Amino acid sequence: MAGEEILPIGAGIASFVVAAGLAAWITRHPPGTKEQMEISEAVRVGASAFLKREMKVIVPVAVGLAVIIGAFLQPSNGIAFAVGATLSAVAGLISLKITVKAAVRAANLSSKGLGKTFAMAFRGGATVGLAVPAMALLAITGLYMIYPDPISIAGVGIGASLIALFIRIGGGIFTKAADMGADLVGKVEANIPEDDPRNPATIADNVGDNVGDAAGMGSDVYESYIVTILAALLIAALIGAPELLMFPVMVGAAGMLASIVGVVIVGSGETKDVMRPLNRSFYVSAGIAVGLNLAFTIIFLGESASAYSLFGSTLIGVALVPVIQRITDRYTNHKYGPVNEIAESAKWGYASLTLMGIIKGLQSTGPFMIALVTAIIASYALGSSFAPEGADPVLYGIFGTAMTAMAMLSLAGIVLSIDAFGPIADNAGGIVEMTGMGEESRKVTDEIDAVGNTTKAVTKGFAIASAALAALAMIQAFQFEAAHIFEGVLELDYSLTNPAVITGLLVGGLLPFIITGQLISGVSRAAMKMVDEVRRQFKAEPGILTGETKPDYARCVDIATVASIKELWKSAVIAITAPIILGILLGPTAVAGLLMGSVVTGIFLAYHLANTGGAWDNAKKLVEMRGEKGSEIHKVTVVGDIIGDPYKDTAGPALNTVIKLLNTIAIVFVSAFVSVLVL
Amino acid sequence: MAGEEILPIGAGIASFVVAAGLAAWITRHPPGTKEQMEISEAVRVGASAFLKREMKVIVPVAVGLAVIIGAFLQPSNGIAFAVGATLSAVAGLISLKITVKAAVRAANLSSKGLGKTFAMAFRGGATVGLAVPAMALLAITGLYMIYPDPISIAGVGIGASLIALFIRIGGGIFTKAADMGADLVGKVEANIPEDDPRNPATIADNVGDNVGDAAGMGSDVYESYIVTILAALLIAALIGAPELLMFPVMVGAAGMLASIVGVVIVGSGETKDVMRPLNRSFYVSAGIAVGLNLAFTIIFLGESASAYSLFGSTLIGVALVPVIQRITDRYTNHKYGPVNEIAESAKWGYASLTLMGIIKGLQSTGPFMIALVTAIIASYALGSSFAPEGADPVLYGIFGTAMTAMAMLSLAGIVLSIDAFGPIADNAGGIVEMTGMGEESRKVTDEIDAVGNTTKAVTKGFAIASAALAALAMIQAFQFEAAHIFEGVLELDYSLTNPAVITGLLVGGLLPFIITGQLISGVSRAAMKMVDEVRRQFKAEPGILTGETKPDYARCVDIATVASIKELWKSAVIAITAPIILGILLGPTAVAGLLMGSVVTGIFLAYHLANTGGAWDNAKKLVEMRGEKGSEIHKVTVVGDIIGDPYKDTAGPALNTVIKLLNTIAIVFVSAFVSVLVL
Repeated sequence: MAGEEILPIGAGIASFVVAAGLAAWITRHPPGTKEQMEISEAVRVGASAFLKREMKVIVPVAVGLAVIIGAFLQPSNGIAFAVGATLSAVAGLISLKITVKAAVRAANLSSKGLGKTFAMAFRGGATVGLAVPAMALLAITGLYMIYPDPISIAGVGIGASLIALFIRIGGGIFTKAADMGADLVGKVEANIPEDDPRNPATIADNVGDNVGDAAGMGSDVYESYIVTILAALLIAALIGAPELLMFPVMVGAAGMLASIVGVVIVGSGETKDVMRPLNRSFYVSAGIAVGLNLAFTIIFLGESASAYSLFGSTLIGVALVPVIQRITDRYTNHKYGPVNEIAESAKWGYASLTLMGIIKGLQSTGPFMIALVTAIIASYALGSSFAPEGADPVLYGIFGTAMTAMAMLSLAGIVLSIDAFGPIADNAGGIVEMTGMGEESRKVTDEIDAVGNTTKAVTKGFAIASAALAALAMIQAFQFEAAHIFEGVLELDYSLTNPAVITGLLVGGLLPFIITGQLISGVSRAAMKMVDEVRRQFKAEPGILTGETKPDYARCVDIATVASIKELWKSAVIAITAPIILGILLGPTAVAGLLMGSVVTGIFLAYHLANTGGAWDNAKKLVEMRGEKGSEIHKVTVVGDIIGDPYKDTAGPALNTVIKLLNTIAIVFVSAFVSVLVL
Repeated sequence: MAGEEILPIGAGIASFVVAAGLAAWITRHPPGTKEQMEISEAVRVGASAFLKREMKVIVPVAVGLAVIIGAFLQPSNGIAFAVGATLSAVAGLISLKITVKAAVRAANLSSKGLGKTFAMAFRGGATVGLAVPAMALLAITGLYMIYPDPISIAGVGIGASLIALFIRIGGGIFTKAADMGADLVGKVEANIPEDDPRNPATIADNVGDNVGDAAGMGSDVYESYIVTILAALLIAALIGAPELLMFPVMVGAAGMLASIVGVVIVGSGETKDVMRPLNRSFYVSAGIAVGLNLAFTIIFLGESASAYSLFGSTLIGVALVPVIQRITDRYTNHKYGPVNEIAESAKWGYASLTLMGIIKGLQSTGPFMIALVTAIIASYALGSSFAPEGADPVLYGIFGTAMTAMAMLSLAGIVLSIDAFGPIADNAGGIVEMTGMGEESRKVTDEIDAVGNTTKAVTKGFAIASAALAALAMIQAFQFEAAHIFEGVLELDYSLTNPAVITGLLVGGLLPFIITGQLISGVSRAAMKMVDEVRRQFKAEPGILTGETKPDYARCVDIATVASIKELWKSAVIAITAPIILGILLGPTAVAGLLMGSVVTGIFLAYHLANTGGAWDNAKKLVEMRGEKGSEIHKVTVVGDIIGDPYKDTAGPALNTVIKLLNTIAIVFVSAFVSVLVL
């Protein structure tokens, strides 16, 4: 890089400036009535309590890891790790602060109509959406300017993964423990409606929406972003073509600038269908990204066939975003067949509903995988077929696929903006309900919430696909890097005839299964603790149910926090130690197998869990929209929704993080994989 | 082979003779009262109708395939295919005939105490258990004597797979469609007990037990047996050591002789705990197998280190059988924690029960995989470390793993015997119930049925593990065979850096997910048809419910048969065309990836589905044993059992067959994989 870094840095700063402007715009709005403020304050305090408690665990772990990495491997990697972790934590903090602020203001605006409320929720989401990828792009570009060797800054990936682990997985357990706990006692036993202020777990539930949904998705995408650029840089370095080193960050910059435009064009005028401005905003961004990618290709790579082939790869990446979103929508939106069939099956009872949800989720993996595989093959073929004379076509092909992943992730700004407004709308609805603002306001927030549910489900597809592509790019980088490091020391055979590779594939394939089991049981255990606490409060203080005494919200938040950290440890230890132990015992080929195995089972499981859960949720909503709330069929669909909660909001998203965590651990510890047992 | 083939042929014939003796012993017993005979006859007619209808589809397909394989590839492969298919069909026929006969006689004996009834059920199972592997061993040995080149008889594998497809998958759909259909209208709507003769679907349900459980498991293990020996022969041929060609069939012969002894020592004396003679019988067989393996090793391979290392591999295979059985038992038997926790969770409602069952099933994959991976690594290390001077250590290592698989499968005789008595006991119980033989008799059959449920669940673990090992052995054989065939034509890179391999892994990983979705939805659709028919009969003929008119059992059998064939086609077409299309497009490396990917996701899914389903079933039984039948908690566990039905008896077992089918298709069509799109 020589001067061109002005572009990604400029894009990152521009993204921050716009985010800051949006944050100021949000803060300028009146925060609402005293009652609304009280609830918002309780959520804010709860979210801070969660973050503080997490930091108490994260900081010692992070410092320890930074020292180990810095001392054992390279000091630069220790620093990179610290930068990656700190920025991710900051992004999480910003997300929580802004979403809480925007939610109470959206609730307050809900009496003034859909347009204004939507604008508040969207801009709250966009603050997060623009800040998170900017953070990632600046981190990588800055680090690379100081240490111009990608492997020496790979630690930034572990930093991103560590925080994602705590916010995405910890948050996932937190949010569903609170949600299920609140529902099990509140709705089922005490017979009080959702979001009722008499329910002690209701604030924890709202905190969970912010923690798990907004901050969690942000840290997930931040991690994918970091991992993908890192993999692309590693591959570019292996190719040894300096001009390519710049290209991934340029693609990132293009998407970022495009996302800014997409965010800015969403106004606050009156609207009937909030899905329309969201869609327009996305397609404008995508169009601009394509144009900028073409311009940057010509400027930085010239007009050769190989340059155009890499542009082609970015085009595939951009196109993949709406394709994956459409597929996901098809299986989770109540407008289409699958959700209707699930709702229909409810009349046959619990067993039918459960089976139908699982069937549809399993089937959804088909089109998803075909889209992903087509993108991988096409981008590889483009990259390798037009590799310049003298270059290694295999590495060029892999670089092409990495560019597809990068182009997909470059749109993270606009995609996250569209996603993060969901939890804000959800929270705003909660505040409207809890403060009794009336039917009209509730209708407004319900409408935005419904769209938010759709975009939330759809963004999960984006997150899984991008995690898969990020991981696949990193696996390639890992293999070539290991071959490079162990050259002349170990004979590395990554082929499927090598039993170490097969062992790795089976062990890696196992991890998503046992981690899914572990996380769902963790949520159940945590929810039971929540149930006990809510019952205890109802019993100890009868005034709570009559509305005379305020429940102890903070204790519920605390219980969910402690339980989530405890449960997440088990999965974290498995994910961190598995590649290290296998690597030391059986060497880098087994680790490559493990990484690949975890992707193969992980993405299918994650996509199945996300879509089955989302479809059950929307089948319940469909029955409610038909006005059958309270009917026998509705009761059946409520059970589906409860089963789906840990599916879609804990285990599914957690797998994204686990898949990437395995990769970042592997690439940083690669030199330790000495293969004690030579097969 | 030069004269030594007398041993496997002798063992096969001996196995047949004992089976024939047992069949004669069974037939000598009085078939029971007129009433019992009537029911048994209805089941027999139903089972024949199922088989006949299947044959109408299978025969044209088989003839077509035989011609294609014979003409396109080699005539010998066409013949091998025909032999493999015919013998498997014959085995299925024997299974059905004998199990029906033994069931009615066991019902008749039930008034004479546990010992006699158990002996009848066990010997019925043992007839099947001894005949099926004998068929497989004779088929391979005979074919190999005529065509002494393993690749020229690989078609025998497709033959085995084709029949397994129809009997295992078709039977799996049939049995659960009938079971769920019978339960949904009978138990839930008409409020009549299970196995009530007034229920028109009850005979179909009993036919299903024979078709899906007894014949299905037999065809599954037959397929594994064939695939494993075939893979071992292919690898031995690639090593080019003639003495090794004999070894796999010798290991097969050892296990077969051992199984005969194990079967014969089970007497008909009075007993209190029928699990004890079963366990004794198994361990005696295992001990004899080890001794014979050692003897055969010394006789045929000499006393070299490499000979002993191969004996070590067979030892691992024999040990793996009880290890896998124990792990499976731990997760599905009501005596242990997991099933108790599931039963406990029922008090929290449907969602908790469903989640807990899924959690336990997912977690069970951990120890299972560790056992499997340890066996693979150890057997490979043994084989490769002690490879004789000048031999390829990789191929020797792979041969070691194949011998582990072979030793495991060599015990199929005794394992199948212990398994197949389950459905006989189940059917006997049905006959006792339907003919109102009274409390005492029912208690006897219930007790045997309970043990049968345990052995059935445990044998599923055996079937999955052996399918996995068979497939892994065949994948290795496929890779080396393809490299051999395309030498100088295509550069085959099976490594994880090749995008064709990655594409294959992802597509292969997808197959088990979509096929599971497809099969579960197929069962649901078929069950709905059954429900419609039962309702129609109740409505059209009110005399049925009062017991005055006999229901039309045959129509229900017919509906289940037609539906099962229709539904199985979709999965079959996917499984057959996927490797062929991918192979033609992207070549053998992509196919190797596909085969491996299907194993990686397939075994985890299969084991999870089998154990989750089995655990739900036994959680329900546990609640019943506590005398809480009819309680709210019992109702919840009944739902779990219904969800688990297609899990454990359709989708789970079907994946075994699919994984192997992919392999047999790949190995036979390998020369067609010309790689149109060169990446």
